[in-house]
Amino acid sequence: MANQRQGEGAVPLWQLRPVGLVGLGLIGGSLGLDLQALGADVRGLVHRESTAVRARERGLAGTVSTDPGVLADCGLVVIALPLDRLLAPDSALLAAMPGDAVVTDVGSVKGPVLEVWGQRPGIRFVASHPMAGTAAAGVEAGEQGLFRGRPWVATPVDATDPGALDAVRELALAVGGRWLTCAPADHDAAVALISHLPVLVSAALLKAADRGGEGALAALVRGLASSGFADTTRVGGGNPDLGTLMARHNREALLAALALYRQEIAALEQLVQEGDWPELHLALLSTHELRPAFFAPPEPAPQELPG
Amino acid sequence: MANQRQGEGAVPLWQLRPVGLVGLGLIGGSLGLDLQALGADVRGLVHRESTAVRARERGLAGTVSTDPGVLADCGLVVIALPLDRLLAPDSALLAAMPGDAVVTDVGSVKGPVLEVWGQRPGIRFVASHPMAGTAAAGVEAGEQGLFRGRPWVATPVDATDPGALDAVRELALAVGGRWLTCAPADHDAAVALISHLPVLVSAALLKAADRGGEGALAALVRGLASSGFADTTRVGGGNPDLGTLMARHNREALLAALALYRQEIAALEQLVQEGDWPELHLALLSTHELRPAFFAPPEPAPQELPG
Repeated sequence: MANQRQGEGAVPLWQLRPVGLVGLGLIGGSLGLDLQALGADVRGLVHRESTAVRARERGLAGTVSTDPGVLADCGLVVIALPLDRLLAPDSALLAAMPGDAVVTDVGSVKGPVLEVWGQRPGIRFVASHPMAGTAAAGVEAGEQGLFRGRPWVATPVDATDPGALDAVRELALAVGGRWLTCAPADHDAAVALISHLPVLVSAALLKAADRGGEGALAALVRGLASSGFADTTRVGGGNPDLGTLMARHNREALLAALALYRQEIAALEQLVQEGDWPELHLALLSTHELRPAFFAPPEPAPQELPG
Repeated sequence: MANQRQGEGAVPLWQLRPVGLVGLGLIGGSLGLDLQALGADVRGLVHRESTAVRARERGLAGTVSTDPGVLADCGLVVIALPLDRLLAPDSALLAAMPGDAVVTDVGSVKGPVLEVWGQRPGIRFVASHPMAGTAAAGVEAGEQGLFRGRPWVATPVDATDPGALDAVRELALAVGGRWLTCAPADHDAAVALISHLPVLVSAALLKAADRGGEGALAALVRGLASSGFADTTRVGGGNPDLGTLMARHNREALLAALALYRQEIAALEQLVQEGDWPELHLALLSTHELRPAFFAPPEPAPQELPG
């Protein structure tokens, strides 16, 4: 099949051809619900028959199978697997990729994904990352509207087919995502700072509160913990598999972020040690003023989903 | 006036005599609304006339004045001032304390408060700390039901009058608080771990993300920050006055908490440095399993508020 470049005004690939979803967890399942609401023909590939049964009940895809052959007619395939399985794809999955298909992923690191998938012959790969919540997982997790207003980052490289990039952009915009592109290393540095570092910062706080609250203090520490502690420890008490995978596959960027963090917490500790309250106040004033810049209201979603 | 010890079944002091609230911000204002809903006679003392006007409009107390004489008939006075003003009370306030009144505070550290207030002649002081949110502040912040199901900790010492402690307990229970008592040093160590340490941990994360996200990365870091980063940085981007006061007046306990924290984050960093993924997974599994213990469902409030 010849390349199908998507020009302005052309029918997007996700409308023109069936869309394959490999994995129907939070991201894959949510995509399946949104795309079907938009009229797409969605084919889901899952690992276990029990998952397939439940995915069919939930209507996550029009066709759901454990047989990779389900992807045969797809023009666009989204690999929505956990990072470890994405980075070590099994041969049956690779063999089942339809010739010349546009393939994208949803992994939370992009450098290692491009090493594995970027130069694979016979497919047109685009590395991408929809930044949607990760608290829920599995076949029950998918929900409609998950991507609305959330960043969907792609990291095109020299080898990336521009038509394939367009096709993924059209998919992201169709489900309401905010489309961004950047270099893979920049993506990985950014998520190290705002996603992977917070997991360890937050986990260390839980461990410190647990150690500091030993013995008679234990019940008190637990009884008094309230919303501030709950917020600050949420990601540190999250999914340990996910946290470990992120650290493992974004190790260099995470170590750079940790080195910066170590300096910053040491600087604050020194101000407390020295009793330099005017400087501590200035530091906390700067973070107070800094934070809103991270959470400026998102631009309106380019396209509204029905319903 | 003779001591009015509150026996079992006796009318609580907050019902028997007017209650004075010094300060009508989040804590004082909320107490005023709750106590009036329960039928109490509430007298509010505020600093500025403009605050008094607004407090009257909001109905935060039955009588609101800038004249300390408003406290004259009160049997129970709650000092609901910011920590710095609580620890350096002005002489007019001290002179206006009704003879033999039960006086309590709502400060977030207890050792320094007892040093200033614990041995003051002519009043019966009980150090206490209702653990209710601190995001909102000022005369608009008070809301009904703020204390329902939240810890209200008292730190009685040898000099504490048992009848006064009872009177404060009855007040806390009346507004739905979960009553706890502990030693002042234990309170201060616990809040250092679960309230004051998180502020610095979270502020350092904001500073690291800001420094790491300089130049071309800045827009990306800000554009990609999502719910995990928002949660983890919430308290670090909070009120800088409050954060500084907490550190200043709970310095020793905070330094002990910071020392523990530094060890814990260094241990996690070392696992990433060494690429010891099985150990990192165990560490994140332990925090995953640890966190729910801090947020066990609270016991039902001992007494329901009307409305």
